[in-house]
Amino acid sequence: MEDLTKVAIVGASGYTGLELLRIVLCHPNAELTAVTSRSNADQKIDDVFPRFKKLPSSELTFIEPDMRAIAASGATIAFLALPHGTAAPFASELLQLGIRVIDLSADFRLDDANTYAEFYDQQHPSPELLDQAVYGLPEIYQNEIQSAQIVASPGCYPTSIILPLIPLLRDKLIDPSSISVSSMSGVSGAGRKASLPLIFPEVNESVRSYGLPRHRHLSEIEQELSKAANQSVTISFVPHLIPVTSGICTTTFANLTGEFSTISNSLRSLYKNSPFVRLRGEGISPDTKHVTGTNFLDIGWHHDPRTNRLILQSTEDNLGKGAAGQAIQSFNLMTGISPTAGLLTA
Amino acid sequence: MEDLTKVAIVGASGYTGLELLRIVLCHPNAELTAVTSRSNADQKIDDVFPRFKKLPSSELTFIEPDMRAIAASGATIAFLALPHGTAAPFASELLQLGIRVIDLSADFRLDDANTYAEFYDQQHPSPELLDQAVYGLPEIYQNEIQSAQIVASPGCYPTSIILPLIPLLRDKLIDPSSISVSSMSGVSGAGRKASLPLIFPEVNESVRSYGLPRHRHLSEIEQELSKAANQSVTISFVPHLIPVTSGICTTTFANLTGEFSTISNSLRSLYKNSPFVRLRGEGISPDTKHVTGTNFLDIGWHHDPRTNRLILQSTEDNLGKGAAGQAIQSFNLMTGISPTAGLLTA
Amino acid sequence: MEDLTKVAIVGASGYTGLELLRIVLCHPNAELTAVTSRSNADQKIDDVFPRFKKLPSSELTFIEPDMRAIAASGATIAFLALPHGTAAPFASELLQLGIRVIDLSADFRLDDANTYAEFYDQQHPSPELLDQAVYGLPEIYQNEIQSAQIVASPGCYPTSIILPLIPLLRDKLIDPSSISVSSMSGVSGAGRKASLPLIFPEVNESVRSYGLPRHRHLSEIEQELSKAANQSVTISFVPHLIPVTSGICTTTFANLTGEFSTISNSLRSLYKNSPFVRLRGEGISPDTKHVTGTNFLDIGWHHDPRTNRLILQSTEDNLGKGAAGQAIQSFNLMTGISPTAGLLTA
Amino acid sequence: MEDLTKVAIVGASGYTGLELLRIVLCHPNAELTAVTSRSNADQKIDDVFPRFKKLPSSELTFIEPDMRAIAASGATIAFLALPHGTAAPFASELLQLGIRVIDLSADFRLDDANTYAEFYDQQHPSPELLDQAVYGLPEIYQNEIQSAQIVASPGCYPTSIILPLIPLLRDKLIDPSSISVSSMSGVSGAGRKASLPLIFPEVNESVRSYGLPRHRHLSEIEQELSKAANQSVTISFVPHLIPVTSGICTTTFANLTGEFSTISNSLRSLYKNSPFVRLRGEGISPDTKHVTGTNFLDIGWHHDPRTNRLILQSTEDNLGKGAAGQAIQSFNLMTGISPTAGLLTA
Repeated sequence: MEDLTKVAIVGASGYTGLELLRIVLCHPNAELTAVTSRSNADQKIDDVFPRFKKLPSSELTFIEPDMRAIAASGATIAFLALPHGTAAPFASELLQLGIRVIDLSADFRLDDANTYAEFYDQQHPSPELLDQAVYGLPEIYQNEIQSAQIVASPGCYPTSIILPLIPLLRDKLIDPSSISVSSMSGVSGAGRKASLPLIFPEVNESVRSYGLPRHRHLSEIEQELSKAANQSVTISFVPHLIPVTSGICTTTFANLTGEFSTISNSLRSLYKNSPFVRLRGEGISPDTKHVTGTNFLDIGWHHDPRTNRLILQSTEDNLGKGAAGQAIQSFNLMTGISPTAGLLTA
Repeated sequence: MEDLTKVAIVGASGYTGLELLRIVLCHPNAELTAVTSRSNADQKIDDVFPRFKKLPSSELTFIEPDMRAIAASGATIAFLALPHGTAAPFASELLQLGIRVIDLSADFRLDDANTYAEFYDQQHPSPELLDQAVYGLPEIYQNEIQSAQIVASPGCYPTSIILPLIPLLRDKLIDPSSISVSSMSGVSGAGRKASLPLIFPEVNESVRSYGLPRHRHLSEIEQELSKAANQSVTISFVPHLIPVTSGICTTTFANLTGEFSTISNSLRSLYKNSPFVRLRGEGISPDTKHVTGTNFLDIGWHHDPRTNRLILQSTEDNLGKGAAGQAIQSFNLMTGISPTAGLLTA
Repeated sequence: MEDLTKVAIVGASGYTGLELLRIVLCHPNAELTAVTSRSNADQKIDDVFPRFKKLPSSELTFIEPDMRAIAASGATIAFLALPHGTAAPFASELLQLGIRVIDLSADFRLDDANTYAEFYDQQHPSPELLDQAVYGLPEIYQNEIQSAQIVASPGCYPTSIILPLIPLLRDKLIDPSSISVSSMSGVSGAGRKASLPLIFPEVNESVRSYGLPRHRHLSEIEQELSKAANQSVTISFVPHLIPVTSGICTTTFANLTGEFSTISNSLRSLYKNSPFVRLRGEGISPDTKHVTGTNFLDIGWHHDPRTNRLILQSTEDNLGKGAAGQAIQSFNLMTGISPTAGLLTA
Repeated sequence: MEDLTKVAIVGASGYTGLELLRIVLCHPNAELTAVTSRSNADQKIDDVFPRFKKLPSSELTFIEPDMRAIAASGATIAFLALPHGTAAPFASELLQLGIRVIDLSADFRLDDANTYAEFYDQQHPSPELLDQAVYGLPEIYQNEIQSAQIVASPGCYPTSIILPLIPLLRDKLIDPSSISVSSMSGVSGAGRKASLPLIFPEVNESVRSYGLPRHRHLSEIEQELSKAANQSVTISFVPHLIPVTSGICTTTFANLTGEFSTISNSLRSLYKNSPFVRLRGEGISPDTKHVTGTNFLDIGWHHDPRTNRLILQSTEDNLGKGAAGQAIQSFNLMTGISPTAGLLTA
């Protein structure tokens, strides 16, 4: 019982916020004390979202995004599930109130405020906080996350792209200038909003790419790949929208610089003890069906001997390991409980 | 009325055969005189496939695949919608009976019987016929198709990959050694067969690649790309299965060797008069939704200036331009009627 | 060529309007001379809707809904694909300009302006026109449609419910007070609009009823059933939204008053020559898959001897026989051409 | 820890078995000691079903269905997820070995072996066991289940139909002879098997009814409704297959015999303390989206004053409350632990 942490969720009406809510309501070590939503303020969670009816704490009432009220609720950690630009000011206020922040927006993912301005078309709202923010990839920054005041939880595409590539770039097994990535994402990744291109008849029986050629997520992807390669890395990235509710499948092409046989060892040596990275093996094509609703990232790899390319495949739930699940992983690290608490589901 | 050609369809119970049947039943210049299916022999078309009920000729009865009966029906052109290996012997017999053949299998697509053996794991059944077979890409081989006795109608993935690349390789605008292709296909491409991995709950809410790293279609893709480049071309190709019934979306990465601005001209000069290739333009991401049920191939292209790569996008219906529609395009050419007869639908 | 009629479509940006556009662009006896859309005015059809690119007339430019411009274009028949309440004033103006009207809204479906007010929560905009409007069910009102100035094309649910029941009520084979109807509809039936409950993640993997207990379509359903029964008929009707783009499946329960064996004859004697009603037979459960994209209505029927109920099943495309296709059927009758012109597709 | 029960699952390769496996692997009070599957024998769970990889006990190896091996594993309760006819002999053997049985097949659901023979077209394999079997609806037979040696877990459709009707029939608020039911089910309900009508292109964009007019589930439905009404009840039931993976939506029509206002009280007085029945209220149409993956059954009800009918709506996951979840509810009762253990998820 001493392991029960009081938490708040700011912005719990989008798909990421709802997935956070779902995990938190069932988390053995979290007690939800405040939940905000402008559009649903003064309504009970289970009246707005009948899926949660009869779950513990589901009768909590949404409040306006008032950070003092959050502090008054006793919350010591707050999740921000808000658009970029909106999150930073709340984060700043929460920190001043002594509340640690796990931000699921892009506001604290980039080390450099100029890169933020370039990719997000606006000045960074709180550049003074960037130094203390930790990029929330638990497999890579476990120690930093444990003691962080602000965790910038990574984007969905970046998680699926970065994790398989980091060990290979660190070990110099692929040519960093040869990386091309094709990803397919479920529609929940586009957000929970009334939008004509997102209605069922427009998306169903359809596949299309979007956001070309400079998707915003490239900024954090290239930042982390460059760190791993210890040199500046630029990649090509094409995201596609496919008719599934959730799930990301990422296919990465890269030219091998070493022996293909070293790939397995490189991946295994970094991830063999990671509870949520599942190395499915050489010659395996992972399926999003096996990861939806979970916090797992599955990885398979293939050799194309005819072109001497490596073909990497990774799958995750864009709302799980790509967003809410990963944020809970950080929460578990920050509170010192079991790394898998609340997340070992299928 | 002198433009009415009697045709037969051999193997009309798979998805390709059914799409052929659909187009032929409504084609103003074709009269279906024979249709074969072992499993449906002696049953009427519209009893087996209620979708066709009340269409002209839909009360025709399926027969066993008997080539003499086809000849006796008066058919002068036969479509073969059969598995590879099965098609060639029928083709041979039909030719001897004086019937021209449009084969939708892979049996006559490769110039070289050895490549066939390598990719299809069996000796070619009729290598002596390869010389007279024409690869049925009407945009490229129009003249050859007009007079062909055997047309080898291209595969679905190859059509979506080859057509956008041919002008660019001919004009030496991209590096032939740098081509990586990621395609997404609807499930009808896997065939109409009872198969556990294809049942709805396995495919729905799922994305997965398959056939890595050496999909059979690579053989015809590389054959045609090598002709266009006038040098041997090897590519990486990753097909993915997505939960749509039909449609292929192909994303191709290639390093630019010339100016990006020349790409549009190259595509336009080859395809400006093609009735079924729609150049959607620079910066456009075509959507399979706009081509399903049609014979169109849509192409968009993007410059990734950060990596100096070209990103090509193409969409088609795997059963339409990728199979049955394209076969009808060849039929139109072979019979000297309007190139768009029976195919200008949306 | 004397059979070519100039037509206009008013409101061609919703799903019904788009399906009308699709059929008209390919119709051998129609020439589209004007097409209106407030939101797309001054843009070409194929720029807004790339699916239609390279079809004849697809480069026509959308205009504002200006009835005089429509008259100036030479159109002699206009289709109205507009919301109820909006259609009637345009219809009135078109009639005064000498243009016959096929209205796909609910504005002219009801004989009684009071019933309209009761079900549509507004006064009827043009009650003086109700007398001359013909309910556009070609199987029932063929003669009236041929000479009509205004055809009120029926709703999607009503078509699927009314057609199977009319002969049975006329022949007094079922108890008119015992009718309960459960229908399932594709999402295109809800319209092409940005609406949160219609976005893919909300509709996918979901089934739900809506509009209970007094759906607006009940007004025209009960009007036509009462005429058939020659007495006032009231029914229960539950529509459900299911994750398909188009298609309606209607299941109707009714207590038999006569022998079940008479059902077939009753249906056959009314519909045996109807080109678009396909009586699939006793014990058959029709599938929407066989009618999507077409103008067919398929009917099957079952006896439940344990309760002595009749179970009727009917399927159609809500945009086809349930809307645009049926409107074209009326167009064919009004212009005296083949009843199946432009509609015999699969 | 004294609350940890050793359990076995017999037949864990169908969708019901897999859902059981999913819940059991994460259940705080169950330890899986044996799992059988003929087709997967000698393989590890997580090699066959990668979704479960890295979950506790997921490295257990499938064995042949050997009841002695199950006993040797220490299991004291066994779940049977097998076809009807196959389950009974195993149940008999397990009981003799002192293992309590929760059977998810139809073998023990009917009190009367003759009714079984009539609906399942075969003699009952173990009629001598019928007396001791308890119908596993925890909301109705809680006490009996607690002490049962054999629990016959109800079918998916029956659960959704019976639960809303039982209080209303007990309280004589509806006419038992007037009940008609239209249900829509996801495809997982048809089983995990290679079957042409179940492959994605056949099911997607399709709705169809099936199993008319005498679906096997009618036998248990009418048995339980008759008990509630204290008279013989016969109903009409039409199941439909819709393109979702899981979820059942049931719409029930019945003539009211009392005041509509009494319906709410009747439902509330029976279910107000049931943890998994969620009375959503009058005028509410529940959505399967809110129950998939859970053990909840949601109920809404509507008055149709024009016909004086009651329209009941209920939703559940066919694999959850309709199968595996409900079986776990019985398990919780049989072992005396919290009724919601392992099941309070969203």
